[in-house]
Amino acid sequence: MSNQAKRAQANHPILDLLADRWSPYAFDPQTVEEEKLLSCLEAARWAASSYNEQPWSFVVAKREDETEFPRLLDCLLEANQAWAKNAGVLMITVTSKQFSRDGKPNLMAEHDIGLAIGNLTAQATSFGLFVHQMAGINRSKARQTYNIPESHEPLTAIGLGYAANAQRDQAPRSRRPLSEFVFKGAWGTSR
Amino acid sequence: MSNQAKRAQANHPILDLLADRWSPYAFDPQTVEEEKLLSCLEAARWAASSYNEQPWSFVVAKREDETEFPRLLDCLLEANQAWAKNAGVLMITVTSKQFSRDGKPNLMAEHDIGLAIGNLTAQATSFGLFVHQMAGINRSKARQTYNIPESHEPLTAIGLGYAANAQRDQAPRSRRPLSEFVFKGAWGTSR
Repeated sequence: MSNQAKRAQANHPILDLLADRWSPYAFDPQTVEEEKLLSCLEAARWAASSYNEQPWSFVVAKREDETEFPRLLDCLLEANQAWAKNAGVLMITVTSKQFSRDGKPNLMAEHDIGLAIGNLTAQATSFGLFVHQMAGINRSKARQTYNIPESHEPLTAIGLGYAANAQRDQAPRSRRPLSEFVFKGAWGTSR
Repeated sequence: MSNQAKRAQANHPILDLLADRWSPYAFDPQTVEEEKLLSCLEAARWAASSYNEQPWSFVVAKREDETEFPRLLDCLLEANQAWAKNAGVLMITVTSKQFSRDGKPNLMAEHDIGLAIGNLTAQATSFGLFVHQMAGINRSKARQTYNIPESHEPLTAIGLGYAANAQRDQAPRSRRPLSEFVFKGAWGTSR
């Protein structure tokens, strides 16, 4: 669903699939096609990562799975459950905390799973799907529910699906200008 | 530069601009056009972030800037300087560690800057540009060189530019299969 009100008001031209991305609260509870879901996960797979560690995992539940969807929904904070229950797919994202090659801490794991989810989101947008990410999860419940080992860390949840056009999602998107976060020569000095 | 040998061998269809992305060691030392650089940064700007905090900043130096480019290059570890010196643009990426709204730690800052750099990378790929990210930076030197405050953390460097077709960059890309990192119902259980 393209939505002109939500489109990024970009000051420099950017790809449609980046400009048209936004995070809906109102999902339409329809099925996400399996082949589209697989392509979204495949897109995540091909992200860059430090030493090609690929420190990302995804626990996935589709809305029509009456066993797994409620279990995953229950790992979200209540405020998120209220809207995420209509997403066609829910996921818990998990990072690995150490490099598999030498057991040393991977300080790039969270950065790298962000890259992978950026890929997933671009792929989703190309299908007309939307992604809403949540920091608000119950990490210990997720760990317990899925038996996630101590070597790994549940980080976020993702709602993926088709957007409904509800009132809550009409506010325009806003961002700081480049001059506030792109610097040259010294911190705070705009290019 | 499209490079069939480097294209992702995807098991499910993904966007060309995700499949054709890879991280060159051999950059062609040509200028990156200013309008393309601005679009890449603009793409980063419109990423999602927790509470819309936008916890990302970028210190940018173009190769033709004879003052700033060597200063930034000097913030990389030596092994990275050897190849990154040919990138058209170098950047230091910086996260903010606290939410501006309440001063609390932002546990999503590294994840969110990953999302933003995912956007930047997709935009770059659409221009035929390439991105090579580096964890290997001298963080204290970066902090000192640019007077980065304690509230913020230098995280990575980015080389952005046109790829040369050097021997070092001919190896095919490899990734773990989805079955190793996409689970259903329990950790380690493939969907």
